[in-house]
Amino acid sequence: MNFAEELKTLKKQVQSKEYLNVDPSSFDKIIISGMGGSGIVGNIFSEIYDKKPVTVVSDYHIPSFADNRTLFIAVSYSGNTEETISALELAKKSGCRVAAITSGGQIANSVDNKVLIPGGLQPRSALGYMLMPLVNTFLKPSHQEIDKTAAMIDAIDEDNRDMESLAREIWDGKFIPVILGFSPFRWVAYRWKTQFNENSKILAFSNYFPELNHNETMPYRGTYRKDEFKFIVVGHPENIKIEERIKWTSSLTSTPFQRVDVRGKYTLDTLFGLIHKGDYLTYHLARFLNVDPTDVSLIEELKKKLNH
Amino acid sequence: MNFAEELKTLKKQVQSKEYLNVDPSSFDKIIISGMGGSGIVGNIFSEIYDKKPVTVVSDYHIPSFADNRTLFIAVSYSGNTEETISALELAKKSGCRVAAITSGGQIANSVDNKVLIPGGLQPRSALGYMLMPLVNTFLKPSHQEIDKTAAMIDAIDEDNRDMESLAREIWDGKFIPVILGFSPFRWVAYRWKTQFNENSKILAFSNYFPELNHNETMPYRGTYRKDEFKFIVVGHPENIKIEERIKWTSSLTSTPFQRVDVRGKYTLDTLFGLIHKGDYLTYHLARFLNVDPTDVSLIEELKKKLNH
Repeated sequence: MNFAEELKTLKKQVQSKEYLNVDPSSFDKIIISGMGGSGIVGNIFSEIYDKKPVTVVSDYHIPSFADNRTLFIAVSYSGNTEETISALELAKKSGCRVAAITSGGQIANSVDNKVLIPGGLQPRSALGYMLMPLVNTFLKPSHQEIDKTAAMIDAIDEDNRDMESLAREIWDGKFIPVILGFSPFRWVAYRWKTQFNENSKILAFSNYFPELNHNETMPYRGTYRKDEFKFIVVGHPENIKIEERIKWTSSLTSTPFQRVDVRGKYTLDTLFGLIHKGDYLTYHLARFLNVDPTDVSLIEELKKKLNH
Repeated sequence: MNFAEELKTLKKQVQSKEYLNVDPSSFDKIIISGMGGSGIVGNIFSEIYDKKPVTVVSDYHIPSFADNRTLFIAVSYSGNTEETISALELAKKSGCRVAAITSGGQIANSVDNKVLIPGGLQPRSALGYMLMPLVNTFLKPSHQEIDKTAAMIDAIDEDNRDMESLAREIWDGKFIPVILGFSPFRWVAYRWKTQFNENSKILAFSNYFPELNHNETMPYRGTYRKDEFKFIVVGHPENIKIEERIKWTSSLTSTPFQRVDVRGKYTLDTLFGLIHKGDYLTYHLARFLNVDPTDVSLIEELKKKLNH
C-alpha cells in the first residue's frame, strides 16, 4: 500500500467499534504507555478524557504510584516497541490491571485483555485504529458523532488542495514549520510536528496557547532567522480569550499566522479533521521535496544498533 | 537588581526551608497550576516526585476529576496570572484542598495555606523559591543534599566561562538551539528553551530521548536548514540505553551534539546545576546580542491588550 492509500484508510478506522473490556470501579487512575506514532494516542486521549488522572509514559519506566488500582494500557502498533515492553513489564510487577492496543508482537502475546488491530500500515497511519478503542471505551461517542467524523475525513480525502498549496508555500520558502495549538488540540499540533519529521523529513516544532505567550512569544517580535519559520495555527478555539491571544500575538509581533481550520460539530470530527489536514500537508510536502513519506529507515537502523 | 545579580540569588533560594502544610492522607492526587517561569515548577516537580499522580495545568481550566481528594497548588510568582487565577477559582468550586506558592497579588489574598516568597525578581529567576517548598514538603532532602546543591550553584556562579564560550559560538553562527533532554531532566531542556526565548530573545526548541528517536530524528540525517540549528544535550543519563541512543543518533545522522554536563551527587544538585548552566548560557548570549535579558515588555503589552 502506498502512503496516499494508507491515508485513505482513516475513514474506515474511525468507524471501528472495538473497545477494551474494563471495569471502571476497579481503578482510579490510568497510565498509557507508548512511543512516537503510538504514544501520541495517549496524549490526545488525555486531552479529551479527564474523569480520572491519565499519566502518559513515553519512556522505559513507570511512576511509582502504579498499583492494583491503576489501569495500565500499552499502545504499540508493532507490539515490539522496547520502551513500551519495559513499561508493561514494570506495570505487571506493580500489580496494575494491564490492557493493550496492538497489531501483534510481544505485547499481543503477553497481554490477555487487548484490542488487536489490523497490521500492515505505518504506525502513524493507524492513529484511528489505536485511538478509537480508547474513545469507545471511555467516551462512548454517538452514531451521529462517528458519522460526522467519517464524513469530515471523506471530505478531506476528496479535496485537500488547500494543504497542497500550503505545502508548496513551505517548499518554496524552505520554511521550518512551528505549529501552534491550544486545548483540547494541543497534541494535534505535536502530531503535525511529528508528521513533518517522519513524512516530509524536515525539522518542525510545536507549542500551544496560552503557554507560549509566557516565553516563546518574545523572539516573535524580532530575532535572527525568524523569517525562515512558518507559524501555523491549527483550529479555532472555543475560549474567546485564546482567540484574543492568537490575534494580539500575531499583531503585536507582526508575525503572520497561517490558520488551518476545521469546524466540526463535535470534538471528534474536529479532532480527526485537523489531524487529517496535517497528514495531507506533510504528504504533499514530501512529494514536492521528492522524498518517500513511508521511509523511516533511519529509525530502523537506530533500533538495530541499539539491539547489538 | 540587574540580571547577573538576580542569577546569584539562586544559591540562597535553594537553601529555603519553606514548606506547605498538607496532610498526605487527605488527598490522593495533585494538580499544580502555573504558567511560564512559574508553571515549569510543576513540570520539574512532576519528574522527581511520582508517589501520587501529578497533573500540571498551564491553562484556564482544570480536569473534571478535581474533587475533595485533590490537592490543588497554584504557583504564580506575581500572584496575578490570569490563567492560574481562573484555575484556582475552578479548583475551589470543585472542593479541592487549595494551596499556593506566590509572592503576593490576588492569589496570596485568596488562599490561606500558602508559602509567601520574596518578590522583586523576574519570575524565571525565582525558580528556587518556587520549587523548594514542593521539594521540602514532598521529598524532604537531607542537609547534605541542600549543601551540595548550594555548592554546585556557587561553583557555576564563580566560573561559567564554558557557557560564555558556547554562547559566543551560538552568536557567531546565529544558530537556533535545539535542547535535548531525558528523564528526570526533560523539563530542564524545556527550561533552557524558555530562557533562550526570554533572556536572549531568540527562537529555541526542546525535545527528549527516547521519544525524539521515533520522529524528530528523521530530518537530522539531512534536510534543508539543518546546519542552522545547534543541538545541545543537557546532562548525563543514568540509563545506559539512553546514553546509547544519544551516541547512535549523533553518529548515524552525522549531527554533532554539544554536551553540557553536570555530575552531582544527588538529583537536586544535578538538577539545579543543569538549570543554572542554562541561566548563564542565555544571559551571556543576551550580552553578545546586545539585548536586555530582563526585558519582557512584549509579554506585558500583550497582557494589557487582553485586559482591555
